[in-house]
Amino acid sequence: MSRYELRFSGAGGQGLITAGIIMAKAASIYEGKQAVQSQSYGPEARGGASKSEVIISDGPIDYPKVTKCDALLAMTQEAADKYSSDLKEGGVLLTDSEFVLRPPKGNFKHVAFPIMTTAKEEVGREIVANIVAFGAMVALTGQVSRENAEKAVLSSVPEAFLELNKKAFTLGYEKALAASA
Amino acid sequence: MSRYELRFSGAGGQGLITAGIIMAKAASIYEGKQAVQSQSYGPEARGGASKSEVIISDGPIDYPKVTKCDALLAMTQEAADKYSSDLKEGGVLLTDSEFVLRPPKGNFKHVAFPIMTTAKEEVGREIVANIVAFGAMVALTGQVSRENAEKAVLSSVPEAFLELNKKAFTLGYEKALAASA
Repeated sequence: MSRYELRFSGAGGQGLITAGIIMAKAASIYEGKQAVQSQSYGPEARGGASKSEVIISDGPIDYPKVTKCDALLAMTQEAADKYSSDLKEGGVLLTDSEFVLRPPKGNFKHVAFPIMTTAKEEVGREIVANIVAFGAMVALTGQVSRENAEKAVLSSVPEAFLELNKKAFTLGYEKALAASA
Repeated sequence: MSRYELRFSGAGGQGLITAGIIMAKAASIYEGKQAVQSQSYGPEARGGASKSEVIISDGPIDYPKVTKCDALLAMTQEAADKYSSDLKEGGVLLTDSEFVLRPPKGNFKHVAFPIMTTAKEEVGREIVANIVAFGAMVALTGQVSRENAEKAVLSSVPEAFLELNKKAFTLGYEKALAASA
């Protein structure tokens, strides 16, 4: 049975729990797979770094914690330092190129572009940086189709912000593809 | 090591994931315990019923899924029917008295009051029903202090809605105590 483990990490307040929930919805409701989304709060979670995890599988998920990370998003240097140690060989690391200046090294694919700046300057709202990052993770992981991922975004945000979030998703998806080419 | 398992269930869109996240924050950030909050999406999660789970412990949480539920919130009949089978002997079941007309029977304490109606008529906004329910669960489970729970609510909602949420929390807490006396 296939099992794919994703971790979204960065600073508290960056919307990473929401990004994880949207990934789980995309995989389950729209893609027909099963998913568990979780976050841990404890000594290791204190301080500035924050993470949210999603497991996607074709069947039931017995152990819902990340054991060997297939794909890691790190929005900050602290998150990259803290959460990259269990990134799998052949996995993928996505970082914000302006906030992670010393990316961890290893046998994985590293893709970077300015996620926060894309949200701020090209969409006009820093608050959608999590959706830019989500779009990028969809492109890099291939666990859900672009179409299903977009549906999950649009069904999860308030109606007044549909266009903003759609733009954020599209920019994230396309910039990740361009950066990994 | 103590381990306490809570489940918040009801209909999708009722804010039960948020209620779970606030419980996990209250337990960890304010009460100094450890917590994991999660939701599963799969065949069992399809349809109208939705659940969010929180495990609270004094130490590390190895298995983050509910195994034997100590406390269950059911906002709807469907959720009560679907999620009460693993409620522990001596546990606690909180239901919305207007939506759960056939509460499950068992060796647990059952407390009921009109949660949705409290939010709608006494706070003035149905959208805070999840915070009314959260306040009630705090009162009934005793895993976090009233003060720490309120801090977690106030640090999790937009500033414009502080008063509304504070009122919802207080009403839920006090109505649950009154209903269980």
